[in-house]
Amino acid sequence: MEKFRQILNDLETLKFDMHNKDFLLTWEKTQDEIVATVKVAEALKNLYERNISCKVFDSGLAVSQFRDNSTRTRFSFSSACNLLGLTVQDLDEGKSQIAHGETVRETSNMISFLTEVIGIRDDMYLGAGHTYMQEVSKSLQSGYEEKVLHQRPTIVNLQCDVDHPTQSMADLAHLKNYFGSLENLRGKKIAMTWAYSPSYGKPLSVPQGIIGLMTRFGMNVTLAHPEGYSLIPETLEVSKKNAAKSGGTFNIANSMDDAFKDADIVYPKSWAPYHVMGRRTELLRANDSAGLKDLEKDCLANNAKFKDWECTEEKMRLTKGGKALYMHCLPADITNVSCKAGEVRDTVFDRYRVETYKEAGYKPYIIASMIFLGRFKNARAMLAELEKKGQKRVAQ
Amino acid sequence: MEKFRQILNDLETLKFDMHNKDFLLTWEKTQDEIVATVKVAEALKNLYERNISCKVFDSGLAVSQFRDNSTRTRFSFSSACNLLGLTVQDLDEGKSQIAHGETVRETSNMISFLTEVIGIRDDMYLGAGHTYMQEVSKSLQSGYEEKVLHQRPTIVNLQCDVDHPTQSMADLAHLKNYFGSLENLRGKKIAMTWAYSPSYGKPLSVPQGIIGLMTRFGMNVTLAHPEGYSLIPETLEVSKKNAAKSGGTFNIANSMDDAFKDADIVYPKSWAPYHVMGRRTELLRANDSAGLKDLEKDCLANNAKFKDWECTEEKMRLTKGGKALYMHCLPADITNVSCKAGEVRDTVFDRYRVETYKEAGYKPYIIASMIFLGRFKNARAMLAELEKKGQKRVAQ
Amino acid sequence: MEKFRQILNDLETLKFDMHNKDFLLTWEKTQDEIVATVKVAEALKNLYERNISCKVFDSGLAVSQFRDNSTRTRFSFSSACNLLGLTVQDLDEGKSQIAHGETVRETSNMISFLTEVIGIRDDMYLGAGHTYMQEVSKSLQSGYEEKVLHQRPTIVNLQCDVDHPTQSMADLAHLKNYFGSLENLRGKKIAMTWAYSPSYGKPLSVPQGIIGLMTRFGMNVTLAHPEGYSLIPETLEVSKKNAAKSGGTFNIANSMDDAFKDADIVYPKSWAPYHVMGRRTELLRANDSAGLKDLEKDCLANNAKFKDWECTEEKMRLTKGGKALYMHCLPADITNVSCKAGEVRDTVFDRYRVETYKEAGYKPYIIASMIFLGRFKNARAMLAELEKKGQKRVAQ
Repeated sequence: MEKFRQILNDLETLKFDMHNKDFLLTWEKTQDEIVATVKVAEALKNLYERNISCKVFDSGLAVSQFRDNSTRTRFSFSSACNLLGLTVQDLDEGKSQIAHGETVRETSNMISFLTEVIGIRDDMYLGAGHTYMQEVSKSLQSGYEEKVLHQRPTIVNLQCDVDHPTQSMADLAHLKNYFGSLENLRGKKIAMTWAYSPSYGKPLSVPQGIIGLMTRFGMNVTLAHPEGYSLIPETLEVSKKNAAKSGGTFNIANSMDDAFKDADIVYPKSWAPYHVMGRRTELLRANDSAGLKDLEKDCLANNAKFKDWECTEEKMRLTKGGKALYMHCLPADITNVSCKAGEVRDTVFDRYRVETYKEAGYKPYIIASMIFLGRFKNARAMLAELEKKGQKRVAQ
Repeated sequence: MEKFRQILNDLETLKFDMHNKDFLLTWEKTQDEIVATVKVAEALKNLYERNISCKVFDSGLAVSQFRDNSTRTRFSFSSACNLLGLTVQDLDEGKSQIAHGETVRETSNMISFLTEVIGIRDDMYLGAGHTYMQEVSKSLQSGYEEKVLHQRPTIVNLQCDVDHPTQSMADLAHLKNYFGSLENLRGKKIAMTWAYSPSYGKPLSVPQGIIGLMTRFGMNVTLAHPEGYSLIPETLEVSKKNAAKSGGTFNIANSMDDAFKDADIVYPKSWAPYHVMGRRTELLRANDSAGLKDLEKDCLANNAKFKDWECTEEKMRLTKGGKALYMHCLPADITNVSCKAGEVRDTVFDRYRVETYKEAGYKPYIIASMIFLGRFKNARAMLAELEKKGQKRVAQ
Repeated sequence: MEKFRQILNDLETLKFDMHNKDFLLTWEKTQDEIVATVKVAEALKNLYERNISCKVFDSGLAVSQFRDNSTRTRFSFSSACNLLGLTVQDLDEGKSQIAHGETVRETSNMISFLTEVIGIRDDMYLGAGHTYMQEVSKSLQSGYEEKVLHQRPTIVNLQCDVDHPTQSMADLAHLKNYFGSLENLRGKKIAMTWAYSPSYGKPLSVPQGIIGLMTRFGMNVTLAHPEGYSLIPETLEVSKKNAAKSGGTFNIANSMDDAFKDADIVYPKSWAPYHVMGRRTELLRANDSAGLKDLEKDCLANNAKFKDWECTEEKMRLTKGGKALYMHCLPADITNVSCKAGEVRDTVFDRYRVETYKEAGYKPYIIASMIFLGRFKNARAMLAELEKKGQKRVAQ
């Protein structure tokens, strides 16, 4: 209760204008909006844990569109929508189809007559996911202005080719909780580093999302990867600017050891090189399965050169006091558990396993917060009203 | 509010007895029942837009059974059920299976113990869809009488081989709104015409539904198609009788130009010939994929003879003042957009695009109205009660 | 109302401690807990039929995990969750994947942040289903203790390789209603017998569940099957002990006639022999489709030796007064209806068809009761409160 009041007070000091807008990229949001999103997530979590209903919708649809397989993001989205009172309806258009033009505009309107939010995951094709979401966004906006739609649904990016805001924001909420406050993150070193994995083609959106977001809090962000494993250049630019503005730093290293040195937080995770993802997108579009197989083979062979990019006990000893916080978006490739050689040694993972689970536990609330702020102009008053009303979530 | 009162007053003058009954074919319903369905849909839309909850169910299942792919009907059904407080559970029996006899009776009962409504789409097989719904209907009725079921769920036909009542009724609601009243439709000419499409095998239920319904409102209904593209004979009989009774006319033309001449409304849409659908049904049942390929080839070749059956600017100029309302159930085959040559020229479609979207926007409310009238004896009082209660749909 | 009061009074005399626990096997529950589960199911059914809302959850997820196809169990689970106010989210992991170790622990936690109940069906692999549920159970328990999860979801076994408690408990509720009381079951003879089916590989969980449960009520339980069609030995031991304790009997016969002789209840149903299911599990795991085909062929040939194990009119005449109650979990293989020769003759089935439907109708309430008792410490008070509140399930 004390904590809830504090959050409401904090929200009063923040300026945010997220009503009827989408949440596509964290760097399109102001600093206050980012902070507000974390605070509202904490407020909803607080109400949930005090068994107070967060149902602000009596009815209404939430559309989920997963253009890639998903379990945890699907459950996070479902949980968030359910918490607020929305019912999820999947839009299943077949995985291989990338609709464009009239189809996107038409479908976006057809599914939105009674819809409050649309969650989209589209991370398979480089250069496509974010573009697609922008197209849906424009379609909804024009449908609303043309009076086809009574309300303008909010899009929540559940992972695209550029950013993974529900992940990076959940990570931020976890860091805030772990270190006590967002202010405490200032000066902390976080190592976002590539790690070896026996699979290939993992999306770039997590490292891009992490460097794009954590550079806003005065952190010393080090991105590390073997040569050739670079990210989308624009996201590096964003990170540089953010670091400069926030009083932090943004460095790129070519060694995991350098990155881990004195780090407060390490985030070792595999991804495919930018140019490989580009090539893969071309091959996927051309339905060139032979080409895809060759690419995979080459890429795995190249990955194999960097098996020493593994988060081992030795590497952990390089970190601040040997006790850096290990983070991962899960599932991790764990050496001796899920594979012979992977991103992280089993003993390291095991020590931080519970922390990674808690990290994941913020995602439903972060998504609920994004929906909440996208639908309600006066989020603070709405939260206060929910607490005052005190409707029990589970009967007692 | 004024409008809502007017609807309640109008409902008081209508006689309808739809409680615990199904909505399978519009021509099984009385004129008053058709009008009541439109009015209740408008009332629900009015409440929705005034942010008043339409939740009449605290809990309860709605079963959806789609024997064909569907996006917009699926979302319309989901939206309608959600609006009223029902939760959709899909019945997925595999697309190719046409169950009969004991299986239908048993399954119909097994899925209905706590079920209020069953929405069925079954339009693939000529002679099968409506028959199947009748079988489910009988099964539910006997299950209710045998006290297996505590309540007798209402079936809503989401498209069968004979009729597509949720579409035609949404179209009617759109026409009512566009022309100001149902009375204003009297004497208006509507051209339901075949149009060229590069695909084949489109169901007959939309044109059949349109001629079967619009002939009831004193309209001059002209059905036009190339030779060989006739509809199920029974639906032509229904339309003739309806027109005679309502004081309208029903004509069949063999030219798109004749149909468009002085039309107030045009509805150009492709469909497969009746005999082709019959042959296709046989081949589908026999799993004869070679035969199906041949049939498709022949049919497409035949279609190609009628590429001039396209809704062009020239054809639109033939209509009343060159300004007939263009209608379509969507998605349309749009020349220069979704195909090289299709049902409608891009410039025509673009002029009416927003109208076709609004047309589609009535479907969730029409379905909700069908459920509402199927479940509540005194629908008028229930609507009045919802308004009086004034529960907010979205918190404010 | 009278009946409801009686149920509440009965509940007061029972000791049960099911809160925050799973329902995996009936023989892990005390006699009072079994009786309480039936009583709460009856109470919920009573409220439902009096149009009183049973919604005890304002929000919350129910996860369903079906590792085998399912229609009726899926609908029963959906109905139960919906009745109580929970929203079902499917966990679809692909049918062939049997996850172990870290994956189970991680997934179990990832899907449970806002989850109240997890329903699992896993009956394909002998030695795997129950083991899997135990693993999920441990994962949830540790997640709860590690403060990863705010609440500890309850697992409901929707059928495993060992038991099928939602079926056997629904059967018990049906018997209680049919014979007037649980006390009236004492001394009644029930014949759980194998029957011929033209298909193979049917799970053992139904006969195992029936003998394991019905032996607890002083019934004379006779299990009958051809040589070689034995069940998991442990379940026979459980049944023997239960019978000894309850004052009933448990016999194994090798003839359907012996079993039917003077029976009050017959439950003729096909299943695969224990050793065949074991061999099948090995072959499934090895992905040995040739081996599976051979096994099926052998097994069907062996089945065919026992075509006379059919519930015919002649056999029914052997039962008590020729009027034993016929039971089946459905769907049955009905001679002359669903196959040429099956488990039961059409005329017999037809006479009991409505009873089997009613039998199935208890399942949603049994599942709801298992959830209710797993989530609420004071179930009796909660039921009383629901009735007192008297919120209408469907508006009137």
